[in-house]
Amino acid sequence: MGLLDYFRSTQSKGSANVAKERLQILVAHDRAARSRPSYLPQLQREILAVIRKYVDIDMDAVTVNYEQEESHEVLELNIILPDAGHREL
Amino acid sequence: MGLLDYFRSTQSKGSANVAKERLQILVAHDRAARSRPSYLPQLQREILAVIRKYVDIDMDAVTVNYEQEESHEVLELNIILPDAGHREL
Repeated sequence: MGLLDYFRSTQSKGSANVAKERLQILVAHDRAARSRPSYLPQLQREILAVIRKYVDIDMDAVTVNYEQEESHEVLELNIILPDAGHREL
Repeated sequence: MGLLDYFRSTQSKGSANVAKERLQILVAHDRAARSRPSYLPQLQREILAVIRKYVDIDMDAVTVNYEQEESHEVLELNIILPDAGHREL
């Protein structure tokens, strides 16, 4: 199953219950060299800064999950968007 | 199954075969209002620009998948990283 299929399957369940605007960002990094410092924590801040150009984000509405394993790390950002928080471009 | 579990399960299979550095980024947007224009295509360019601060990306090594459905859109970026392309910060 591809990742898009995964999103599709979770979405069909979720959207029936919740009508909230939601943004979910995942960054998965397969690292060949374990010794190198991770840049995902910095990346996270910069990605959030980019998103704030498009939508008003209440930082309390951002949930961050970060997992680091041997040669794999995953950053997960879940953002509940405000109902009328879009800035039109 | 949570998304982190999903990444974990696909990673354990994939890493046995490939030792390549890989970065995978997913942005899923549950949209309450369908009429609003999507900002994911612009977001994609900005996220890539941010990542290029940390790693040298060959744009030929970036695969982009974008799917838009009724009230849900998913942007998927798959990046094969160069073996020694890291710029240390």
